[in-house]
Amino acid sequence: MKTCLENVRTTVPLVHNITNYVTVNDVANIILACGGSPIMSDNSEDVVDITTICGGLNINIGTLNQRTIPSMFLAGNTANKLGHKVLLDPVGAGASRLRTDTAIKLVQDVKFDVIRGNISEIKTLATGSGTTKGVDADVADSVTEETLDDAVKFVKKLAKELGCIIAITGAIDLVADGDSCYVIRNGRPEMGKITGTGCQLSGMMTAFLVANPKEPLKAAAAAVCVMGIAGEIGYEHMQEGEGNSTYRNRIIDAVYNMDGKTLEERAKYEIR
Amino acid sequence: MKTCLENVRTTVPLVHNITNYVTVNDVANIILACGGSPIMSDNSEDVVDITTICGGLNINIGTLNQRTIPSMFLAGNTANKLGHKVLLDPVGAGASRLRTDTAIKLVQDVKFDVIRGNISEIKTLATGSGTTKGVDADVADSVTEETLDDAVKFVKKLAKELGCIIAITGAIDLVADGDSCYVIRNGRPEMGKITGTGCQLSGMMTAFLVANPKEPLKAAAAAVCVMGIAGEIGYEHMQEGEGNSTYRNRIIDAVYNMDGKTLEERAKYEIR
Amino acid sequence: MKTCLENVRTTVPLVHNITNYVTVNDVANIILACGGSPIMSDNSEDVVDITTICGGLNINIGTLNQRTIPSMFLAGNTANKLGHKVLLDPVGAGASRLRTDTAIKLVQDVKFDVIRGNISEIKTLATGSGTTKGVDADVADSVTEETLDDAVKFVKKLAKELGCIIAITGAIDLVADGDSCYVIRNGRPEMGKITGTGCQLSGMMTAFLVANPKEPLKAAAAAVCVMGIAGEIGYEHMQEGEGNSTYRNRIIDAVYNMDGKTLEERAKYEIR
Repeated sequence: MKTCLENVRTTVPLVHNITNYVTVNDVANIILACGGSPIMSDNSEDVVDITTICGGLNINIGTLNQRTIPSMFLAGNTANKLGHKVLLDPVGAGASRLRTDTAIKLVQDVKFDVIRGNISEIKTLATGSGTTKGVDADVADSVTEETLDDAVKFVKKLAKELGCIIAITGAIDLVADGDSCYVIRNGRPEMGKITGTGCQLSGMMTAFLVANPKEPLKAAAAAVCVMGIAGEIGYEHMQEGEGNSTYRNRIIDAVYNMDGKTLEERAKYEIR
Repeated sequence: MKTCLENVRTTVPLVHNITNYVTVNDVANIILACGGSPIMSDNSEDVVDITTICGGLNINIGTLNQRTIPSMFLAGNTANKLGHKVLLDPVGAGASRLRTDTAIKLVQDVKFDVIRGNISEIKTLATGSGTTKGVDADVADSVTEETLDDAVKFVKKLAKELGCIIAITGAIDLVADGDSCYVIRNGRPEMGKITGTGCQLSGMMTAFLVANPKEPLKAAAAAVCVMGIAGEIGYEHMQEGEGNSTYRNRIIDAVYNMDGKTLEERAKYEIR
Repeated sequence: MKTCLENVRTTVPLVHNITNYVTVNDVANIILACGGSPIMSDNSEDVVDITTICGGLNINIGTLNQRTIPSMFLAGNTANKLGHKVLLDPVGAGASRLRTDTAIKLVQDVKFDVIRGNISEIKTLATGSGTTKGVDADVADSVTEETLDDAVKFVKKLAKELGCIIAITGAIDLVADGDSCYVIRNGRPEMGKITGTGCQLSGMMTAFLVANPKEPLKAAAAAVCVMGIAGEIGYEHMQEGEGNSTYRNRIIDAVYNMDGKTLEERAKYEIR
């Protein structure tokens, strides 16, 4: 995994982000922290040019609207033509019709390299998408040691059907293609008390995918480990009186300071 | 007041925010810090679904635009139908025609549980709104010990006329319905050097309203005390060389760490 | 330069910002930190009223779109009529057709007091704008001791042609009108690992221009020095384990705490 991080630092991948206005600043700073370079652009007249000069595209539907939805399709199709890495973060799929429909249409229209979400968002995609009828989404609503076996089967099957890597993050993180699944046990529950750790991971993961074009599964899993380890290190640095707002900074700081050795030593994963 | 905070922590109220893009991240993090769960959505095709799954709605007109104004009315009306708690933060009412008109129309069209703003914004509503002609808005431009009596009368009368709780925040904070007014003396002047402490309070207050449906006045006042005390505690934690940006984090951190005992002991208020 | 900072603190200039949603919160907080007062508004029906009550206007095209581009022209023209200070930050000019065209049209249609960008953005304006045909933009792509002489000539000539102050920030910062050029050597390379230090500088610089109407060149240079020195002081305060996210806070904090004496003592500049 060490190499995956070092490749980001060496190649400084340019990542185009069409993302929500809630967590966008943290997404930009974590992409810089890991060694990449972020550009944000969501206007239909701007996204083709911007995505063209980048190496990868991160589409996050967190605060989608009539103006930005067409930009997502346009940028996604352009990135596909250019052979760029494309990631989807289907924030809130399942919470509203618009989010669910948009996520499903994006999956049908754009070839994604990775889809990253929580179990509920990924289940929504599995159930709702016409292309994934065969997938049994009756998996539990959280990935725990008890539900792990079923969840691993589910995520592999979905990855095979959609022909892309699926990353489900939660207490235990799963990153799978059709054949293998990284089961990752880094991170801390307190990360859920910060807005946007998922969005941040998606942005950083896109940088990892661009910098490691031949090993997308490993790159995606490495990004998950980096985020989880940063959550652990950030927490270790917390001082008296500090809470979720400072913790947010400390996590990004920990990504900034992470080296390959730390990643290698602290990553807790198995491949199933 | 203790119970009001504890109810937020226990019930994890889901708050739908239609808010400005300047302070939105801090609003999300402070809602998480107090124990709630934030969702941001401002698109007309999305807000009905989102507000339906939430317990409360926080409307903040800070960076209003043609696209989001209809969403505010739509979400507000939906929340009213569902009996959800709804709060208005009329940011900048009085500073532009669009802001003043939008705030007034919202007050006429949506039944708000609380309107929270500074004295100038609230006076604009009192003067401009057809429904509040009887209110004498010739109250002073800041609430101080000298102007307090008049301000308390003003805020109670306006609350009665509008049929909702009015919260005016400043050096001294007032939270009133038609009968009673909490006069709150927590907080620090340095909080005014951070963008969005008002927006943050509005988001947090909505969570308090949802978690304490039968005691809205007390809940709103408790949220004001929590914010003010967090401002005091955050300031006590400031270290050499720190300024407004770190102070912002320390305030949210202090909300995150606040317990009922601290709230009870440090809240400085009287009821008039 | 001392006086320039002190004038901001004394007069609390109100700055209207039409800026991107990525770094907007930091822009607001740094304007507060230096002593100004920020307002954000980007809606065509709102910007005329808002710019009218302000003393200066900061236009940043970082996440421009169909809705906000007309607002930029409208606010710019209004500010011109009122004799307000107006600054342009042409973020990403050269990276897309829309950004380049918009920046050039803005320069043609609005009279700017200052244009602030990196060398690449400023070169794009110099090459692309019909009004600047005479300017040789074949200057190097970064300002270093080796390329300094040519860069100084370039920036002065462009400033003369456009009739405004040009600020190019990078390893060495240049702030010039047609006659003189401040060459500034404050700051740290690590500032490039934070999103939006340029945007922050543009917001702060607008406050400096408003507060020092008779000495715009000195005011713009003073803002650059304040930012660079804050970068140095913020870095000196960094503790073990801290990275770019905390550094962002520490820079704004250092602006908040900066006094005229520190500015005077630490500013490293020569006038050419």
